[in-house]
Amino acid sequence: MKLWLPTSHAFMATPSAFRSVRRACSASSSLKWEGGVSMVQGASRGIGLLEKNDKGHVVATCRNPDRATGLVDLKDKFAERLNIVPLDLTIESTIEASAKFIREKYGSLNLLINASGILSIPNVLQPETTLSKVERSSLMLSYEVNAVGPILTIKHMWPLLKAGGGSGTERDVAVVANLSARVGSIGDNHLGGWHSYRSSKAALNQLTKNVSVEFTRRRDPIICILLHPGTVDTDLSKPFQRNVPEGKLFTKEFSVQKLLSIINNAKSHDNGKFFAWDGQEIPW
Amino acid sequence: MKLWLPTSHAFMATPSAFRSVRRACSASSSLKWEGGVSMVQGASRGIGLLEKNDKGHVVATCRNPDRATGLVDLKDKFAERLNIVPLDLTIESTIEASAKFIREKYGSLNLLINASGILSIPNVLQPETTLSKVERSSLMLSYEVNAVGPILTIKHMWPLLKAGGGSGTERDVAVVANLSARVGSIGDNHLGGWHSYRSSKAALNQLTKNVSVEFTRRRDPIICILLHPGTVDTDLSKPFQRNVPEGKLFTKEFSVQKLLSIINNAKSHDNGKFFAWDGQEIPW
Ligand SMILES: NC(=O)c1ccc[n+]([C@@H]2O[C@H](COP(=O)([O-])OP(=O)(O)OC[C@H]3O[C@@H](n4cnc5c(N)ncnc54)[C@H](OP(=O)(O)O)[C@@H]3O)[C@@H](O)[C@H]2O)c1
Ligand SMILES: NC(=O)c1ccc[n+]([C@@H]2O[C@H](COP(=O)([O-])OP(=O)(O)OC[C@H]3O[C@@H](n4cnc5c(N)ncnc54)[C@H](OP(=O)(O)O)[C@@H]3O)[C@@H](O)[C@H]2O)c1
Repeated sequence: MKLWLPTSHAFMATPSAFRSVRRACSASSSLKWEGGVSMVQGASRGIGLLEKNDKGHVVATCRNPDRATGLVDLKDKFAERLNIVPLDLTIESTIEASAKFIREKYGSLNLLINASGILSIPNVLQPETTLSKVERSSLMLSYEVNAVGPILTIKHMWPLLKAGGGSGTERDVAVVANLSARVGSIGDNHLGGWHSYRSSKAALNQLTKNVSVEFTRRRDPIICILLHPGTVDTDLSKPFQRNVPEGKLFTKEFSVQKLLSIINNAKSHDNGKFFAWDGQEIPW
Repeated sequence: MKLWLPTSHAFMATPSAFRSVRRACSASSSLKWEGGVSMVQGASRGIGLLEKNDKGHVVATCRNPDRATGLVDLKDKFAERLNIVPLDLTIESTIEASAKFIREKYGSLNLLINASGILSIPNVLQPETTLSKVERSSLMLSYEVNAVGPILTIKHMWPLLKAGGGSGTERDVAVVANLSARVGSIGDNHLGGWHSYRSSKAALNQLTKNVSVEFTRRRDPIICILLHPGTVDTDLSKPFQRNVPEGKLFTKEFSVQKLLSIINNAKSHDNGKFFAWDGQEIPW
């Protein structure tokens, strides 16, 4: 398993060593944490829950920390480098509380991965196979979790990302990586269906583009990218895996390795772009 | 003023003549109304409220027929060719009731224009100038009215559009025209801001594309297009008109004339496309 952590560093520290590396960098910014501080929003399972034997601190958020057994297992291993913090995308106060936690503990953030997302929920949300099955409640719920939540998370983490920039990492900038999906592409939509999911991801793409434009305009040391992880063997894809061609269903480990390589190599000119797992750009 | 009506016909009928033209066309479809039956959803004011001295029947929907004085004036003039029916996009039962009205009165529909849309509402909805002003409630409300409502309207009108196709008009197919906006384009987004509006229109674009794919797949005699009306002198654009370059603010009459020409000339291969007022395609 891999934990979403920034690029590797020559300096390898024990957990206790981290407590002593907190230091101010310059007057205007910023605290520097060796290996940086990353937040993985939606880390209870799936693509968000992945371990990486690396440096840096991680704030892993999920709706129910007590039930996130995979995360708790990692906690045993990573000790103080890993913080598990409750966050439900539909409750903005939990997003604010997570920002407060990071502000008080680290003062800055170098990487935010919005990994959560919903496609189907038994008895609540079914991906639509036809227009006649489109329901207001499904559209609204998918939009709330897949588009609104990630943007509110960026909004509240913005000051921390500004303070962090690339400091402590091998990048020049802080990175926001939103997990989108190829089916969110309008130009690439040849099959139809999945109205609530497709629509919410297209909206996420537009919101991410919007945020990227503002980061550039303000010359913030932050970029924002969209990632399609491929079709990955998780709970989300489970009901649809029989349609996946042989060899096209990725393990979480494979997908995360690919996505991390995009994140770790991201440059300013990637701001606002939409990448598939293999680094290819996806049309809007 | 122009009323959203389909393309002109050689046959000019008086309102009373229309009552006698109701006739079945074929076993599988369909009723033929000379000049066709059009629905303008969001006809109380702005681009939706426009008169055209033409033939055909119009179902003009709005939230409050009693307060839609412009529409009531048209009613005096167009008599039985114009039906004013209450419809609030946020109350699905009113969409269903409108479909029932059309089904019982006409049995078919040849054109659906989704004209309504919200950008700002005093004390309720302000277009965002920065990420830090993005609010959950604004995102959700804009999505509900600008994306969810139009798609639910298409869902409920679908059987009527299938029954109507191009019959009674000079087109081969029924047309659904959704009023989107250039700022809904992700590829064309260089300015940022207006998060709620941009995001909801990008979602509308994706949902429209989705519907167009299904119409093609099922070989329904319907196409679905997206239209950008230009910057038009209406209540919607009023607060922002000072930023519009000289000569770039269109009258409603000019914009509607351009949009009607796109609609009236629409062919099957236009299904799922996004056109500006001048017929140029807009990128996603
Ligand atoms: N798997 C694929 O093939 C695939 C393909 C394309 C794109 N993606 C995208 O990749 C991302 C990760 O997908 P996945 O396959 O890892 O999904 P997954 O295994 O179903 O995990 C979804 C995650 O989202 C969290 N979540 C759901 N609702 C939430 C809420 N209201 N607040 C906070 N968190 C919430 C879940 O937390 P709980 O445990 O609390 O429910 C869980 O951690 C998603 O954005 C998805 O759209 C996946
Ligand atoms: N004007 C422009 O420059 C411009 C530019 C690009 C795109 N557009 C798009 O063109 C379309 C028409 O815009 P416009 O300028 O004519 O706007 P407008 O003058 O503000 O009129 C908006 C219309 O939407 C209706 N509406 C609002 N909420 C509704 C709801 N919940 N249910 C049903 N109807 C509702 C309004 O009805 P009420 O009278 O009941 O409020 C009104 O008829 C919109 O989709 C807009 O986004 C306009």
